[in-house]
Amino acid sequence: MKMRLKRKIKNLKRLKTNLYKKDFLLTWEKSEKDLKMILEVADILKQMREENISPRVYDSGLAVSIFRDKSTRTRFSYASAANLLGLEVQDMDEEKSQIAHGETVRETANMISFLTDFIGIRDDMFLGEGNKYMREVGEALDEGYENGVLPNRPGIVNLQCDMDHPTQSMADLLHLKNEYGSLDKLKGKKLVMSWAYSPSYGKPLSVPQGIIALMSRFGMDIELAYPEGYDLIPEIVEIAKKNAKKSGGSFKISHSMKEAVKDADIVYPKSWAPFHIMQQRTELLKAGDKKGLDALEKSCLAENAKFKDWEYNEEKMKLTKNAEALYMHCLPADISGVSCKEGEVEDTTFEKFRLKTYHEAGYKPYIIAAMMFTNRFKNPGKMLGKILEEGKKRMGV
Amino acid sequence: MKMRLKRKIKNLKRLKTNLYKKDFLLTWEKSEKDLKMILEVADILKQMREENISPRVYDSGLAVSIFRDKSTRTRFSYASAANLLGLEVQDMDEEKSQIAHGETVRETANMISFLTDFIGIRDDMFLGEGNKYMREVGEALDEGYENGVLPNRPGIVNLQCDMDHPTQSMADLLHLKNEYGSLDKLKGKKLVMSWAYSPSYGKPLSVPQGIIALMSRFGMDIELAYPEGYDLIPEIVEIAKKNAKKSGGSFKISHSMKEAVKDADIVYPKSWAPFHIMQQRTELLKAGDKKGLDALEKSCLAENAKFKDWEYNEEKMKLTKNAEALYMHCLPADISGVSCKEGEVEDTTFEKFRLKTYHEAGYKPYIIAAMMFTNRFKNPGKMLGKILEEGKKRMGV
Amino acid sequence: MKMRLKRKIKNLKRLKTNLYKKDFLLTWEKSEKDLKMILEVADILKQMREENISPRVYDSGLAVSIFRDKSTRTRFSYASAANLLGLEVQDMDEEKSQIAHGETVRETANMISFLTDFIGIRDDMFLGEGNKYMREVGEALDEGYENGVLPNRPGIVNLQCDMDHPTQSMADLLHLKNEYGSLDKLKGKKLVMSWAYSPSYGKPLSVPQGIIALMSRFGMDIELAYPEGYDLIPEIVEIAKKNAKKSGGSFKISHSMKEAVKDADIVYPKSWAPFHIMQQRTELLKAGDKKGLDALEKSCLAENAKFKDWEYNEEKMKLTKNAEALYMHCLPADISGVSCKEGEVEDTTFEKFRLKTYHEAGYKPYIIAAMMFTNRFKNPGKMLGKILEEGKKRMGV
Repeated sequence: MKMRLKRKIKNLKRLKTNLYKKDFLLTWEKSEKDLKMILEVADILKQMREENISPRVYDSGLAVSIFRDKSTRTRFSYASAANLLGLEVQDMDEEKSQIAHGETVRETANMISFLTDFIGIRDDMFLGEGNKYMREVGEALDEGYENGVLPNRPGIVNLQCDMDHPTQSMADLLHLKNEYGSLDKLKGKKLVMSWAYSPSYGKPLSVPQGIIALMSRFGMDIELAYPEGYDLIPEIVEIAKKNAKKSGGSFKISHSMKEAVKDADIVYPKSWAPFHIMQQRTELLKAGDKKGLDALEKSCLAENAKFKDWEYNEEKMKLTKNAEALYMHCLPADISGVSCKEGEVEDTTFEKFRLKTYHEAGYKPYIIAAMMFTNRFKNPGKMLGKILEEGKKRMGV
Repeated sequence: MKMRLKRKIKNLKRLKTNLYKKDFLLTWEKSEKDLKMILEVADILKQMREENISPRVYDSGLAVSIFRDKSTRTRFSYASAANLLGLEVQDMDEEKSQIAHGETVRETANMISFLTDFIGIRDDMFLGEGNKYMREVGEALDEGYENGVLPNRPGIVNLQCDMDHPTQSMADLLHLKNEYGSLDKLKGKKLVMSWAYSPSYGKPLSVPQGIIALMSRFGMDIELAYPEGYDLIPEIVEIAKKNAKKSGGSFKISHSMKEAVKDADIVYPKSWAPFHIMQQRTELLKAGDKKGLDALEKSCLAENAKFKDWEYNEEKMKLTKNAEALYMHCLPADISGVSCKEGEVEDTTFEKFRLKTYHEAGYKPYIIAAMMFTNRFKNPGKMLGKILEEGKKRMGV
Repeated sequence: MKMRLKRKIKNLKRLKTNLYKKDFLLTWEKSEKDLKMILEVADILKQMREENISPRVYDSGLAVSIFRDKSTRTRFSYASAANLLGLEVQDMDEEKSQIAHGETVRETANMISFLTDFIGIRDDMFLGEGNKYMREVGEALDEGYENGVLPNRPGIVNLQCDMDHPTQSMADLLHLKNEYGSLDKLKGKKLVMSWAYSPSYGKPLSVPQGIIALMSRFGMDIELAYPEGYDLIPEIVEIAKKNAKKSGGSFKISHSMKEAVKDADIVYPKSWAPFHIMQQRTELLKAGDKKGLDALEKSCLAENAKFKDWEYNEEKMKLTKNAEALYMHCLPADISGVSCKEGEVEDTTFEKFRLKTYHEAGYKPYIIAAMMFTNRFKNPGKMLGKILEEGKKRMGV
């Protein structure tokens, strides 16, 4: 066991990365080596935890979280990651603290960071806003650090924005890597990121965008399927196209779930709201136009209802490679007859992959911890080696 | 001091228990040896804390709490216990995270548990639901652990359900043990668990049920007194009866506080709602029948008001053994003229025992810590011995 | 670096203080040596943190916070301080726990303190109440500790009350000390604590009161400027007068910001509500007189509006010493054209000192940590020396 860990850690030395002191905001801002490093470090941290070796590298320090949208999974993943490394989560509850917008973001960013090592932010409600907000916070922290206000520059982890959901997509990637044995083995695999019907409205675009932009980098054949009109942000689709080309894979958009899943190795059926609807919604929200929002929701749900056949089910699964394509989901899924009347996935189909989706989710805490770890240590392999050598127990004395 | 601790720890070896990797849901599922082990470990942890020895056995890890009802005492007790052992509390705020019911409990249970060591749950609002919910969570965790989703099976601690309040009753038992010197000395003592008047409505049954089911195991003469109609769950009363018989004590139900407290060594006057009312209430709540609930509350309060003489006071105290029976309460008590006009206990009587009730409450953090400790270490004595030997300071360097 | 720390720590030995086991409620209850000790310890802790030396002195323990008013800065400062020393913050959320008033404060105070080392309290809404409440809590803790309910007496840190805001004023003092090089160099400096216009209403008096009562102790010439009628609590103004006399400085009240800032070295323009209005407001709040409160707010805002020229701006700054008086603020400031239309300070003026105000705020976590540290260790210098010697890293293994 320890030998395997040693070997893994040794292998890290070959990776020249640019993660040190860099925020993790979008996967497409990172090199393949950066991404591989994160996957490797996450894997090593997971194994250490499982073998009762404590990778605690902080004796004290805060990991602030700012959740501008509800969350269970990511909230606990972030808390777990921080805690594993020795940081205490301090939630920035905007109701309790009236965090300001605009000009005063930079003030608040500094006020919560005097002894803070990381800020994890979820801000996925407004198109064009979430990622921008994270960068605003980052600039404020840069200023604070450069002027001696902050003893160190807290790293920012994107816990989901309007563009990307990197902790999710990276956990998904680690899941795929471990399902298939290596990143190399993903080459030539067909992954279908498909829209799916849901009775709810306004689901963020960040998951499908994050998936196509990331998975297209490893030589897979990506097919993005959705009913006409349910487009994603065009710029991110462009990124996926370019990635696919560069990595030796392919990228294709189509408009039938049934057609798309044919011979698929991996399917990711998940609802989202069309890009242009999200834009309208953002404007109405900014204008505080409650009536307009209600009308938009109504028309959008009516539009959605036309596509109830975009449910992933036994019939469609039969069309996939060997009728056993790996089903993926960020959870919670809208399961027909379970969490809703008609939804994204048939209950029997989901049940076959239910535990696999739990495994998929289980990588997230370690991905976040790896993002933190690589942000803080210039030579992650060296630090992991020291941890292994020290061999402090997580539990027991 | 250290010698006394050493001796205590050595004595633990004689106890063969079945606590390792077992949830603590109901005291009547545990053997006497199990209960004794918990009391002993709690006592040792308390003494260590007081002597500035840190029994921290976790370098990292989460202790999740799920409070489906308001709480101060138990919330802080759980947090204190977790912190003492080195775990960080992460509250599962259902408002923030929309924890699902039914089919998705198993999903959520896993999602919050990837790096979690314990889940403490309070769910005491609905008869027939709270304990069931804990078991549902437990089964979900079993499945997750068995399928490699979770690196370890988090232990569950019942922080109050519809049936039992084991952290309270065990703290109460430790209080009695220390008041009288040993568990053996409880034999033949008369303990009166009595209903008492309160202007509020719908107080849970878990405390009186927990008390009669636990205290009946140590040879005490238990008298359960309440106005006719204010029954507890019949199955739990049966358990108390059997326990009393087996332990060489007795169990009796009567319907006058005044009669009951005669010659009592210990009195526990505390309000509760009748079992059949709680059943009706649960059904009305499930049906969302607000009107029905209001009517039930009204009629129930009117019924309660007939029993305002069920106040524990000087006059009744005079009837107890040597006019000085030990008064117990889980707090907060409804104190006449203090927290309400007319309540469970007269102010002067309460004042005599006020500090004793604080001591009583003070055992709860250690009881919870002991439940955690014995769940995690197969040989608690051995681990406590190592802690003592290491002798790390809680405060200071 | 380490040599400088060693010297600083050695110098602490000369300070005979009375901080051990004492709550920090009001600066004017502390001796000059006490205050100097806190400043020195804060400085040392800050330097240790910056040099990656962990001053963690707790292996476990809780730091409870009770915020009866919204807070970001102080909340994070308290959490940071606690975490730096090894304590976990546990927030006493009154909504979740229904903390009681009056008679039951003493019960709750004990219930949350069984394994608690500190309680930080913000209670600044009601004149005559906040500080009183802290003392009530303190008496309850005394009783609990003396009667063996609590293993130690948790220390109380005043995180802002109706009278004083000592963590703020002490952070401000440390800022001044470091700006000018030493406390001695503050002698003869002119500090203007000035009322300033704000479109909001009912801001607490604790900051201006805390500033005049503290800064008057170091030989400065204090000028308190406000529109007639905007008085502070008379008793505290008296304290400032006496302090000034004793310390060889001066204290003066005047009624024009423009006149006051002439030749000032330091200006602190900040809005507050008049003392007599706060008194009325407290009575109306206690009586639950919503109509009366609305009327009072209306008339008060109308009154405020007469003094919109009490804005600190370029024109006024030109009148200060060398036209560059140090601007101070507890943040957030009401900045004209930024956070409000017309406010306490002109945007260009604020911008010149913005980063300085961040530095000012950055001392607060260390001031709080120093208050905790000196409360717990009889000989802070000795303990700091041991920490330095041990040299445990805050980050890294």
